[in-house]
Amino acid sequence: MTVPYLTPLTPEQQRAFGVAEPWPLALSDRVRFSELDPLNHVNNVAYLIWFETARVTYFKHVGISRYADKTVEPRIVIRRGEIDWLQEMRADEDYVILTKVVAYRSTSFTMKQEIVSGGTTRATFSCVVVLLQPDGSGRMPIPQHILDHFHEVDGVSQP
Amino acid sequence: MTVPYLTPLTPEQQRAFGVAEPWPLALSDRVRFSELDPLNHVNNVAYLIWFETARVTYFKHVGISRYADKTVEPRIVIRRGEIDWLQEMRADEDYVILTKVVAYRSTSFTMKQEIVSGGTTRATFSCVVVLLQPDGSGRMPIPQHILDHFHEVDGVSQP
Amino acid sequence: MTVPYLTPLTPEQQRAFGVAEPWPLALSDRVRFSELDPLNHVNNVAYLIWFETARVTYFKHVGISRYADKTVEPRIVIRRGEIDWLQEMRADEDYVILTKVVAYRSTSFTMKQEIVSGGTTRATFSCVVVLLQPDGSGRMPIPQHILDHFHEVDGVSQP
Amino acid sequence: MTVPYLTPLTPEQQRAFGVAEPWPLALSDRVRFSELDPLNHVNNVAYLIWFETARVTYFKHVGISRYADKTVEPRIVIRRGEIDWLQEMRADEDYVILTKVVAYRSTSFTMKQEIVSGGTTRATFSCVVVLLQPDGSGRMPIPQHILDHFHEVDGVSQP
Repeated sequence: MTVPYLTPLTPEQQRAFGVAEPWPLALSDRVRFSELDPLNHVNNVAYLIWFETARVTYFKHVGISRYADKTVEPRIVIRRGEIDWLQEMRADEDYVILTKVVAYRSTSFTMKQEIVSGGTTRATFSCVVVLLQPDGSGRMPIPQHILDHFHEVDGVSQP
Repeated sequence: MTVPYLTPLTPEQQRAFGVAEPWPLALSDRVRFSELDPLNHVNNVAYLIWFETARVTYFKHVGISRYADKTVEPRIVIRRGEIDWLQEMRADEDYVILTKVVAYRSTSFTMKQEIVSGGTTRATFSCVVVLLQPDGSGRMPIPQHILDHFHEVDGVSQP
Repeated sequence: MTVPYLTPLTPEQQRAFGVAEPWPLALSDRVRFSELDPLNHVNNVAYLIWFETARVTYFKHVGISRYADKTVEPRIVIRRGEIDWLQEMRADEDYVILTKVVAYRSTSFTMKQEIVSGGTTRATFSCVVVLLQPDGSGRMPIPQHILDHFHEVDGVSQP
Repeated sequence: MTVPYLTPLTPEQQRAFGVAEPWPLALSDRVRFSELDPLNHVNNVAYLIWFETARVTYFKHVGISRYADKTVEPRIVIRRGEIDWLQEMRADEDYVILTKVVAYRSTSFTMKQEIVSGGTTRATFSCVVVLLQPDGSGRMPIPQHILDHFHEVDGVSQP
């Protein structure tokens, strides 16, 4: 299978990757040499960088920020994260990063992310993201079109 | 104050750093240019590397592993971590990484870590560490002299 | 154009990428958020990691090392490198890493690498690679099948 | 010896570190776990980050830029670098990064840097740095007080 790199995968491509229930955003990538530690496994911290790459892609894709103009775009801050490293990864493995929003409040939301490779989940991450005013002076309410995305694409069922 | 770099700080040095209640292991360091993100703040992932540096120092200091011989030393695996990013950090800030074990079971233990700078806590990390046999074949019980360290130095009160 | 990620590109795919004269090994990738510096440009050091990723792929592809068994495979050491940063790169840019060997001696060889994006060369790297015995005890002659690759695929014209 | 971390070392401290002829700027640091590669050596790229850390310290120290206001401070660009990796480094080694300017033209200058550990030089780096206008629109002449520093502190003997 040829996997398009860092481009959102279709549900069919996700299933071919071993993701039984496709997510709204799935990006594939491959382990690099620089991510290996002295035990020849992927370093624990590398997963956090993968999750970050996918979150930024999500934020741009959804329209929260284009990371282009700090004077008008919200400042996106991660307040808290929980990570489970479930199964080690090794050199050259292909993997997919799954990302979606699962809940929100007026100025913050919770994201879930997973790393899947070879049909098994290798790591999961959950984090709380806060939107601040561009100058950092206070919270910024989540715009309605973003809330719509949370509901319609990511399947968030609240309020 | 001249702070000895990456060398365990004395209780007095910790207090001078703004750590009101000194921890059993405290290491100081400074933000580097490569750790800054496009907003000129320390990148979220950099904190995880700082915590890792301090954990490895702890493991060597306590005698869990010298990271010298993979055929006889336990394989140290982090299963789960929780991080709170509390206050942003910037270029050239000095900080201290605080590390201790707070609980254990027969083959795993829980560590707490904090980043303190300018008298305020910037981030906290809690993780569960598991010891495996050198070949990864199964769990390895925590040696008694390590348990003694948990009790006598880190102040773990169990069982 | 859908570009296969970190998979050797065909000559036709390279031309579509703006590489007028295709190289024997071309790998495509994309700038990540973590590679940006406070000026929102790709950090100088990130290019070195890209070149490293491509070199390791080259070494595995050609059969110099599979990075699987340190007791029998040659130790690959870079002795000297020259880099020119020609034009800055920014978030989300696609690029291709071009890699080939251009000269060799009995136990070392010279590699050339380039980063091309949007039809222009962004950085070039040239380095001298030495093969050592697995235990680091001395130089290792380049095996004949590797020399054949240098000649037949990379187009090295010596001896 | 207690070495002050990332603080310019005195000539006496440099000699204690094995630097026979002290340099105008010397900063000490220590290898971290995250800088090790699968062979348990310091990764080639880590040296480039060390050199970068010292260059930024130099630029701030000398007054070329405080990295505080992009609208008025010169944009500092590295055009070309040459690195020699001379002797491998391992976990926990202390080292010193030596930095000075050795030549200049009206809008650019050449820096030399070295990594010394245990009395031996482990890597050397030479690079050409260009000053651009804050908006990147063109070259910026090196201010006279910077040229004075090149002559009086770094010992540049030209023009």
